Amino acid sequence: MVRTPRLSPEALRLYLVTDRALAHGRDLEALVAQAVEGGVSCVQLREKAINTRDFLALATALQARLGPLGIPLFINDRVDIALACGAPGVHLGQSDLPVADARRLLGPEALIGWSVETPEDVARAQTLDVDYLGVSPVFATPTKTDTLPPWGLEGLASVRRQTRLPLVAIGGVNLGNAAEVLQAGADGLAVVSAICSAPEPRAAAQALRQCIDIHTRPKALNP
Amino acid sequence: MVRTPRLSPEALRLYLVTDRALAHGRDLEALVAQAVEGGVSCVQLREKAINTRDFLALATALQARLGPLGIPLFINDRVDIALACGAPGVHLGQSDLPVADARRLLGPEALIGWSVETPEDVARAQTLDVDYLGVSPVFATPTKTDTLPPWGLEGLASVRRQTRLPLVAIGGVNLGNAAEVLQAGADGLAVVSAICSAPEPRAAAQALRQCIDIHTRPKALNP
Repeated sequence: MVRTPRLSPEALRLYLVTDRALAHGRDLEALVAQAVEGGVSCVQLREKAINTRDFLALATALQARLGPLGIPLFINDRVDIALACGAPGVHLGQSDLPVADARRLLGPEALIGWSVETPEDVARAQTLDVDYLGVSPVFATPTKTDTLPPWGLEGLASVRRQTRLPLVAIGGVNLGNAAEVLQAGADGLAVVSAICSAPEPRAAAQALRQCIDIHTRPKALNP
Repeated sequence: MVRTPRLSPEALRLYLVTDRALAHGRDLEALVAQAVEGGVSCVQLREKAINTRDFLALATALQARLGPLGIPLFINDRVDIALACGAPGVHLGQSDLPVADARRLLGPEALIGWSVETPEDVARAQTLDVDYLGVSPVFATPTKTDTLPPWGLEGLASVRRQTRLPLVAIGGVNLGNAAEVLQAGADGLAVVSAICSAPEPRAAAQALRQCIDIHTRPKALNP
Protein backbone atom coordinates (compact mmCIF):
# COMPACT_ATOMS: atom_id res chain seq x y z
CA MET A 1 0.00 0.00 0.00
CA VAL A 2 1.47 3.33 -1.07
CA ARG A 3 -0.09 6.39 0.46
CA THR A 4 0.89 9.88 1.45
CA PRO A 5 2.34 9.83 4.96
CA ARG A 6 0.21 11.55 7.56
CA LEU A 7 3.31 12.32 9.61
CA SER A 8 6.78 13.50 8.72
CA PRO A 9 9.78 11.90 10.43
CA GLU A 10 10.79 15.40 11.55
CA ALA A 11 7.75 15.54 13.83
CA LEU A 12 9.08 12.51 15.68
CA ARG A 13 12.64 13.72 16.30
CA LEU A 14 12.31 14.42 20.01
CA TYR A 15 9.34 12.58 21.41
CA LEU A 16 8.43 13.24 25.03
CA VAL A 17 6.49 10.56 26.91
CA THR A 18 5.01 11.90 30.12
CA ASP A 19 5.33 10.05 33.38
CA ARG A 20 3.57 11.48 36.40
CA ALA A 21 5.63 9.52 38.91
CA LEU A 22 8.94 10.52 37.35
CA ALA A 23 7.90 14.18 37.41
CA HIS A 24 8.08 14.00 41.20
CA GLY A 25 4.98 16.06 41.88
CA ARG A 26 5.71 18.81 39.38
CA ASP A 27 2.81 20.07 37.27
CA LEU A 28 2.76 18.00 34.08
CA GLU A 29 1.30 20.70 31.87
CA ALA A 30 4.02 23.13 32.90
CA LEU A 31 6.66 20.47 32.46
CA VAL A 32 5.48 19.73 28.93
CA ALA A 33 5.45 23.44 28.13
CA GLN A 34 9.05 23.76 29.25
CA ALA A 35 10.08 20.69 27.28
CA VAL A 36 8.42 22.11 24.18
CA GLU A 37 10.33 25.36 24.61
CA GLY A 38 13.46 23.25 24.68
CA GLY A 39 12.65 21.59 21.36
CA VAL A 40 10.39 18.60 21.91
CA SER A 41 8.67 17.87 18.60
CA CYS A 42 5.81 15.67 19.81
CA VAL A 43 4.27 14.53 23.08
CA GLN A 44 2.71 11.33 24.29
CA LEU A 45 0.43 11.66 27.30
CA ARG A 46 0.64 8.43 29.25
CA GLU A 47 -1.50 8.11 32.37
CA LYS A 48 -2.16 4.75 33.94
CA ALA A 49 -3.45 5.69 37.37
CA ILE A 50 -5.65 8.78 37.17
CA ASN A 51 -9.36 8.75 36.49
CA THR A 52 -10.88 9.43 33.10
CA ARG A 53 -12.17 12.87 34.07
CA ASP A 54 -8.72 14.08 35.16
CA PHE A 55 -7.05 12.39 32.19
CA LEU A 56 -9.38 14.21 29.80
CA ALA A 57 -8.85 17.55 31.54
CA LEU A 58 -5.07 17.29 31.17
CA ALA A 59 -5.33 16.00 27.59
CA THR A 60 -7.60 18.90 26.67
CA ALA A 61 -5.22 21.41 28.20
CA LEU A 62 -2.23 19.90 26.39
CA GLN A 63 -4.03 19.77 23.06
CA ALA A 64 -5.02 23.43 23.43
CA ARG A 65 -1.36 24.24 24.01
CA LEU A 66 0.27 21.94 21.44
CA GLY A 67 -2.27 22.10 18.61
CA PRO A 68 -1.53 25.71 17.62
CA LEU A 69 2.20 24.93 17.69
CA GLY A 70 1.77 22.04 15.26
CA ILE A 71 3.16 19.62 17.82
CA PRO A 72 1.32 16.29 17.63
CA LEU A 73 -0.19 14.99 20.87
CA PHE A 74 -0.48 11.22 21.14
CA ILE A 75 -2.73 9.77 23.82
CA ASN A 76 -1.39 6.52 25.22
CA ASP A 77 -3.90 3.67 24.99
CA ARG A 78 -7.12 5.65 25.42
CA VAL A 79 -8.89 6.17 22.11
CA ASP A 80 -11.87 7.68 23.93
CA ILE A 81 -9.69 10.37 25.49
CA ALA A 82 -8.11 11.16 22.11
CA LEU A 83 -11.53 11.51 20.51
CA ALA A 84 -12.91 13.62 23.34
CA CYS A 85 -9.98 16.08 23.51
CA GLY A 86 -9.37 16.29 19.77
CA ALA A 87 -5.79 15.04 19.91
CA PRO A 88 -4.48 14.06 16.48
CA GLY A 89 -3.35 10.60 17.54
CA VAL A 90 -2.86 7.72 19.89
CA HIS A 91 0.01 5.48 20.81
CA LEU A 92 -0.91 1.83 21.23
CA GLY A 93 1.01 -0.93 22.94
CA GLN A 94 0.55 -4.65 22.56
CA SER A 95 -1.94 -4.67 25.48
CA ASP A 96 -4.04 -1.80 24.14
CA LEU A 97 -6.82 -1.76 21.53
CA PRO A 98 -5.92 -3.60 18.33
CA VAL A 99 -4.81 -1.16 15.65
CA ALA A 100 -7.72 -2.04 13.36
CA ASP A 101 -10.28 -1.18 16.06
CA ALA A 102 -8.51 2.06 16.89
CA ARG A 103 -8.31 3.05 13.23
CA ARG A 104 -12.01 2.34 12.77
CA LEU A 105 -12.93 4.52 15.75
CA LEU A 106 -10.46 7.33 15.04
CA GLY A 107 -10.89 7.60 11.29
CA PRO A 108 -8.46 7.76 8.37
CA GLU A 109 -6.78 11.05 9.34
CA ALA A 110 -5.71 10.07 12.84
CA LEU A 111 -2.11 9.30 13.70
CA ILE A 112 -1.49 5.89 15.22
CA GLY A 113 1.80 4.81 16.70
CA TRP A 114 2.41 1.21 17.67
CA SER A 115 4.98 -0.35 19.97
CA VAL A 116 6.94 -3.27 18.57
CA GLU A 117 8.63 -5.57 21.06
CA THR A 118 9.51 -8.57 18.88
CA PRO A 119 10.48 -9.28 15.25
CA GLU A 120 7.00 -10.79 14.86
CA ASP A 121 5.46 -7.44 15.83
CA VAL A 122 7.59 -5.73 13.18
CA ALA A 123 6.42 -8.19 10.54
CA ARG A 124 2.78 -7.65 11.58
CA ALA A 125 3.24 -3.89 11.46
CA GLN A 126 3.69 -4.15 7.69
CA THR A 127 0.03 -5.14 7.44
CA LEU A 128 -1.32 -2.45 9.75
CA ASP A 129 -2.36 1.12 9.04
CA VAL A 130 0.03 2.76 11.50
CA ASP A 131 2.08 5.93 11.20
CA TYR A 132 5.21 5.04 13.12
CA LEU A 133 6.64 2.27 15.24
CA GLY A 134 7.91 2.65 18.76
CA VAL A 135 10.88 0.29 19.06
CA SER A 136 10.53 -0.73 22.68
CA PRO A 137 12.64 -1.02 24.70
CA VAL A 138 15.91 -0.19 23.00
CA PHE A 139 17.77 -0.39 26.27
CA ALA A 140 16.82 -1.79 29.65
CA THR A 141 15.05 0.79 31.76
CA PRO A 142 13.49 1.01 35.18
CA THR A 143 10.62 3.13 33.79
CA LYS A 144 8.71 0.19 32.38
CA THR A 145 9.14 -3.22 33.91
CA ASP A 146 6.56 -5.14 31.87
CA THR A 147 8.58 -5.23 28.68
CA LEU A 148 10.44 -7.94 26.84
CA PRO A 149 14.26 -8.01 26.56
CA PRO A 150 15.68 -4.85 24.98
CA TRP A 151 16.33 -4.64 21.24
CA GLY A 152 19.76 -3.13 21.60
CA LEU A 153 21.34 -1.12 18.81
CA GLU A 154 21.68 -4.20 16.62
CA GLY A 155 18.02 -5.02 17.05
CA LEU A 156 17.06 -1.46 16.22
CA ALA A 157 19.18 -1.63 13.08
CA SER A 158 17.47 -4.87 12.07
CA VAL A 159 14.04 -3.25 12.51
CA ARG A 160 15.27 -0.40 10.33
CA ARG A 161 16.09 -2.88 7.59
CA GLN A 162 12.66 -4.53 7.85
CA THR A 163 10.35 -1.52 7.52
CA ARG A 164 10.03 1.86 5.86
CA LEU A 165 7.82 3.18 8.67
CA PRO A 166 9.28 5.95 10.80
CA LEU A 167 10.91 4.53 13.92
CA VAL A 168 10.96 6.04 17.38
CA ALA A 169 13.39 4.47 19.82
CA ILE A 170 12.23 4.25 23.41
CA GLY A 171 13.69 2.80 26.58
CA GLY A 172 16.78 4.10 28.30
CA VAL A 173 17.42 6.71 25.63
CA ASN A 174 19.37 9.72 26.84
CA LEU A 175 21.99 12.24 25.81
CA GLY A 176 24.73 9.68 26.31
CA ASN A 177 23.43 7.24 23.71
CA ALA A 178 21.33 9.52 21.47
CA ALA A 179 23.88 9.67 18.65
CA GLU A 180 24.30 5.92 18.33
CA VAL A 181 20.55 5.33 18.49
CA LEU A 182 20.05 7.70 15.60
CA GLN A 183 22.92 6.14 13.71
CA ALA A 184 21.32 2.73 14.19
CA GLY A 185 18.31 3.95 12.24
CA ALA A 186 15.86 5.71 14.57
CA ASP A 187 14.03 8.68 13.12
CA GLY A 188 13.28 9.97 16.57
CA LEU A 189 14.13 9.53 20.20
CA ALA A 190 11.43 8.97 22.77
CA VAL A 191 12.46 9.98 26.25
CA VAL A 192 10.73 9.68 29.57
CA SER A 193 12.97 10.20 32.57
CA ALA A 194 15.61 12.13 30.58
CA ILE A 195 13.12 15.01 30.51
CA CYS A 196 10.42 14.21 33.10
CA SER A 197 12.96 13.75 35.89
CA ALA A 198 15.38 16.45 34.73
CA PRO A 199 15.89 19.33 37.17
CA GLU A 200 15.43 21.63 34.17
CA PRO A 201 13.21 19.98 31.55
CA ARG A 202 13.73 22.84 29.11
CA ALA A 203 17.50 22.55 29.22
CA ALA A 204 17.33 18.77 29.04
CA ALA A 205 15.16 18.95 25.93
CA GLN A 206 17.40 21.57 24.40
CA ALA A 207 20.53 19.45 24.85
CA LEU A 208 18.83 16.41 23.34
CA ARG A 209 17.48 18.46 20.48
CA GLN A 210 20.89 19.87 19.63
CA CYS A 211 22.35 16.39 19.54
CA ILE A 212 19.48 15.18 17.34
CA ASP A 213 19.80 18.10 14.94
CA ILE A 214 23.50 17.42 14.48
CA HIS A 215 22.94 13.75 13.73
CA THR A 216 19.91 14.12 11.46
CA ARG A 217 21.22 17.08 9.46
CA PRO A 218 21.13 16.29 5.73
CA LYS A 219 24.62 15.37 4.51
CA ALA A 220 26.41 17.96 2.39
CA LEU A 221 26.29 17.09 -1.28
CA ASN A 222 30.02 17.57 -1.71
CA PRO A 223 32.35 15.93 0.75
CA MET B 1 -37.22 17.79 26.24
CA VAL B 2 -39.73 15.07 25.46
CA ARG B 3 -38.46 12.13 23.47
CA THR B 4 -39.12 8.46 23.07
CA PRO B 5 -37.17 6.55 25.70
CA ARG B 6 -34.37 4.41 24.34
CA LEU B 7 -34.70 2.06 27.29
CA SER B 8 -37.67 0.59 29.11
CA PRO B 9 -37.60 0.43 32.91
CA GLU B 10 -38.19 -3.33 32.59
CA ALA B 11 -34.71 -3.72 31.09
CA LEU B 12 -33.24 -2.29 34.30
CA ARG B 13 -35.08 -4.51 36.80
CA LEU B 14 -32.17 -6.71 37.79
CA TYR B 15 -28.92 -5.02 36.89
CA LEU B 16 -25.73 -7.01 37.39
CA VAL B 17 -22.49 -5.08 37.89
CA THR B 18 -19.47 -7.31 37.48
CA ASP B 19 -16.62 -7.29 39.96
CA ARG B 20 -13.62 -9.44 39.21
CA ALA B 21 -12.31 -9.41 42.76
CA LEU B 22 -15.67 -10.40 44.25
CA ALA B 23 -15.94 -13.29 41.79
CA HIS B 24 -13.04 -14.91 43.64
CA GLY B 25 -11.26 -16.20 40.56
CA ARG B 26 -14.32 -17.61 38.80
CA ASP B 27 -14.64 -16.99 35.07
CA LEU B 28 -16.59 -13.77 34.62
CA GLU B 29 -18.17 -14.70 31.31
CA ALA B 30 -19.53 -17.93 32.77
CA LEU B 31 -20.70 -16.12 35.88
CA VAL B 32 -22.61 -13.59 33.79
CA ALA B 33 -24.16 -16.39 31.74
CA GLN B 34 -25.41 -18.09 34.91
CA ALA B 35 -26.76 -14.83 36.27
CA VAL B 36 -28.61 -14.21 33.01
CA GLU B 37 -30.16 -17.66 33.21
CA GLY B 38 -31.35 -16.66 36.66
CA GLY B 39 -33.10 -13.55 35.39
CA VAL B 40 -30.63 -10.68 35.20
CA SER B 41 -32.07 -8.12 32.76
CA CYS B 42 -28.95 -6.06 32.03
CA VAL B 43 -25.23 -6.19 32.72
CA GLN B 44 -22.59 -3.59 33.46
CA LEU B 45 -19.02 -4.68 32.81
CA ARG B 46 -16.79 -2.84 35.26
CA GLU B 47 -13.06 -3.45 35.05
CA LYS B 48 -10.61 -1.13 36.73
CA ALA B 49 -7.44 -3.17 36.74
CA ILE B 50 -7.11 -5.18 33.53
CA ASN B 51 -5.52 -3.92 30.34
CA THR B 52 -7.49 -2.58 27.41
CA ARG B 53 -6.87 -5.64 25.25
CA ASP B 54 -8.27 -8.03 27.84
CA PHE B 55 -11.12 -5.65 28.68
CA LEU B 56 -12.13 -5.55 25.01
CA ALA B 57 -11.90 -9.32 24.64
CA LEU B 58 -14.27 -9.87 27.57
CA ALA B 59 -16.60 -7.09 26.45
CA THR B 60 -16.76 -8.57 22.95
CA ALA B 61 -17.55 -12.02 24.32
CA LEU B 62 -20.28 -10.66 26.59
CA GLN B 63 -21.83 -8.58 23.83
CA ALA B 64 -21.91 -11.64 21.55
CA ARG B 65 -23.72 -13.51 24.30
CA LEU B 66 -26.08 -10.79 25.54
CA GLY B 67 -26.91 -9.00 22.29
CA PRO B 68 -29.01 -11.84 20.81
CA LEU B 69 -30.88 -12.12 24.12
CA GLY B 70 -31.81 -8.43 24.06
CA ILE B 71 -29.98 -7.87 27.33
CA PRO B 72 -28.26 -4.48 27.31
CA LEU B 73 -24.54 -4.45 28.09
CA PHE B 74 -23.22 -1.28 29.68
CA ILE B 75 -19.49 -0.70 29.70
CA ASN B 76 -18.33 1.11 32.82
CA ASP B 77 -16.37 4.29 32.06
CA ARG B 78 -14.71 3.20 28.82
CA VAL B 79 -16.42 4.71 25.80
CA ASP B 80 -13.69 3.33 23.53
CA ILE B 81 -14.38 -0.23 24.69
CA ALA B 82 -18.11 0.24 24.14
CA LEU B 83 -17.52 1.52 20.62
CA ALA B 84 -15.04 -1.22 19.77
CA CYS B 85 -17.18 -4.13 21.03
CA GLY B 86 -20.51 -2.77 19.82
CA ALA B 87 -22.12 -2.64 23.26
CA PRO B 88 -25.31 -0.59 23.30
CA GLY B 89 -24.26 1.60 26.19
CA VAL B 90 -21.97 2.88 28.88
CA HIS B 91 -22.31 3.66 32.53
CA LEU B 92 -20.55 6.83 33.65
CA GLY B 93 -19.62 7.93 37.12
CA GLN B 94 -18.71 11.39 38.30
CA SER B 95 -15.01 10.72 37.59
CA ASP B 96 -15.58 9.39 34.07
CA LEU B 97 -16.06 11.23 30.78
CA PRO B 98 -18.63 14.03 30.96
CA VAL B 99 -21.98 12.87 29.58
CA ALA B 100 -21.91 15.39 26.73
CA ASP B 101 -18.55 14.08 25.49
CA ALA B 102 -19.71 10.49 25.75
CA ARG B 103 -22.94 11.25 23.90
CA ARG B 104 -21.01 12.99 21.13
CA LEU B 105 -18.70 10.01 20.69
CA LEU B 106 -21.37 7.31 21.04
CA GLY B 107 -24.14 8.88 18.99
CA PRO B 108 -27.83 9.46 19.59
CA GLU B 109 -28.87 5.80 19.83
CA ALA B 110 -26.48 4.78 22.59
CA LEU B 111 -27.65 4.14 26.13
CA ILE B 112 -25.96 6.22 28.81
CA GLY B 113 -26.38 5.65 32.51
CA TRP B 114 -25.07 8.14 35.03
CA SER B 115 -24.33 7.78 38.71
CA VAL B 116 -25.82 10.43 41.00
CA GLU B 117 -24.24 10.85 44.41
CA THR B 118 -25.72 14.17 45.54
CA PRO B 119 -28.94 16.18 45.10
CA GLU B 120 -26.90 18.52 42.90
CA ASP B 121 -26.09 15.61 40.58
CA VAL B 122 -29.80 14.80 40.35
CA ALA B 123 -30.62 18.40 39.43
CA ARG B 124 -27.87 18.38 36.79
CA ALA B 125 -29.17 15.10 35.38
CA GLN B 126 -32.31 16.91 34.26
CA THR B 127 -30.19 18.81 31.73
CA LEU B 128 -28.27 15.79 30.42
CA ASP B 129 -29.13 13.32 27.68
CA VAL B 130 -28.97 10.20 29.86
CA ASP B 131 -31.16 7.11 29.89
CA TYR B 132 -31.20 6.22 33.56
CA LEU B 133 -29.66 7.27 36.84
CA GLY B 134 -27.70 5.03 39.15
CA VAL B 135 -28.56 6.18 42.68
CA SER B 136 -25.27 5.49 44.40
CA PRO B 137 -24.80 4.28 47.04
CA VAL B 138 -28.21 3.53 48.51
CA PHE B 139 -26.63 1.75 51.46
CA ALA B 140 -23.09 1.65 52.79
CA THR B 141 -21.09 -1.09 51.10
CA PRO B 142 -17.58 -2.43 51.24
CA THR B 143 -17.58 -2.89 47.42
CA LYS B 144 -16.86 0.73 46.66
CA THR B 145 -15.05 2.86 49.20
CA ASP B 146 -14.69 6.06 47.19
CA THR B 147 -18.32 7.10 47.44
CA LEU B 148 -20.16 9.79 49.36
CA PRO B 149 -22.51 9.01 52.28
CA PRO B 150 -25.35 6.67 51.29
CA TRP B 151 -28.69 8.03 50.12
CA GLY B 152 -30.74 5.71 52.29
CA LEU B 153 -34.33 4.87 51.43
CA GLU B 154 -35.48 8.40 52.18
CA GLY B 155 -32.85 9.83 49.86
CA LEU B 156 -33.86 7.39 47.12
CA ALA B 157 -37.49 8.44 47.54
CA SER B 158 -36.49 12.10 47.25
CA VAL B 159 -34.60 11.37 44.01
CA ARG B 160 -37.73 9.60 42.76
CA ARG B 161 -39.73 12.77 43.38
CA GLN B 162 -37.16 14.92 41.53
CA THR B 163 -36.88 13.08 38.22
CA ARG B 164 -38.82 11.03 35.73
CA LEU B 165 -35.69 9.18 34.58
CA PRO B 166 -35.53 5.46 35.37
CA LEU B 167 -33.67 4.87 38.61
CA VAL B 168 -31.37 1.99 39.42
CA ALA B 169 -30.44 1.62 43.07
CA ILE B 170 -26.90 0.47 43.77
CA GLY B 171 -24.88 -0.11 46.91
CA GLY B 172 -25.62 -2.75 49.48
CA VAL B 173 -28.74 -3.95 47.67
CA ASN B 174 -29.63 -7.58 48.35
CA LEU B 175 -32.55 -9.92 48.83
CA GLY B 176 -33.08 -8.64 52.37
CA ASN B 177 -33.76 -5.03 51.34
CA ALA B 178 -34.89 -5.43 47.71
CA ALA B 179 -38.59 -4.95 48.47
CA GLU B 180 -38.16 -1.70 50.35
CA VAL B 181 -35.75 -0.31 47.75
CA LEU B 182 -38.35 -0.90 45.05
CA GLN B 183 -41.06 0.58 47.23
CA ALA B 184 -38.92 3.68 47.73
CA GLY B 185 -39.03 4.26 43.98
CA ALA B 186 -36.27 2.32 42.25
CA ASP B 187 -37.11 0.89 38.84
CA GLY B 188 -34.31 -1.58 39.11
CA LEU B 189 -31.82 -3.08 41.53
CA ALA B 190 -28.13 -3.09 40.75
CA VAL B 191 -26.25 -5.79 42.56
CA VAL B 192 -22.58 -6.60 42.74
CA SER B 193 -21.63 -8.97 45.53
CA ALA B 194 -25.17 -10.37 45.88
CA ILE B 195 -24.53 -12.19 42.60
CA CYS B 196 -20.76 -11.99 41.94
CA SER B 197 -19.91 -13.50 45.33
CA ALA B 198 -22.85 -15.89 45.51
CA PRO B 199 -21.96 -19.59 45.64
CA GLU B 200 -24.62 -20.10 42.97
CA PRO B 201 -25.00 -16.95 40.86
CA ARG B 202 -27.94 -18.41 38.92
CA ALA B 203 -29.91 -19.15 42.07
CA ALA B 204 -29.02 -15.79 43.59
CA ALA B 205 -30.26 -13.99 40.48
CA GLN B 206 -33.41 -16.10 40.41
CA ALA B 207 -34.28 -15.27 44.00
CA LEU B 208 -33.75 -11.57 43.42
CA ARG B 209 -35.74 -11.68 40.22
CA GLN B 210 -38.71 -13.35 41.91
CA CYS B 211 -38.72 -10.70 44.60
CA ILE B 212 -38.51 -7.94 41.97
CA ASP B 213 -41.31 -9.42 39.88
CA ILE B 214 -43.60 -9.55 42.89
CA HIS B 215 -42.95 -5.95 43.80
CA THR B 216 -43.11 -4.47 40.30
CA ARG B 217 -46.15 -6.42 39.13
CA PRO B 218 -48.85 -4.03 37.90
CA LYS B 219 -51.48 -3.58 40.59
CA ALA B 220 -54.81 -5.30 39.94
CA LEU B 221 -57.43 -2.85 38.78
CA ASN B 222 -59.99 -4.08 41.33
CA PRO B 223 -58.93 -4.44 44.92
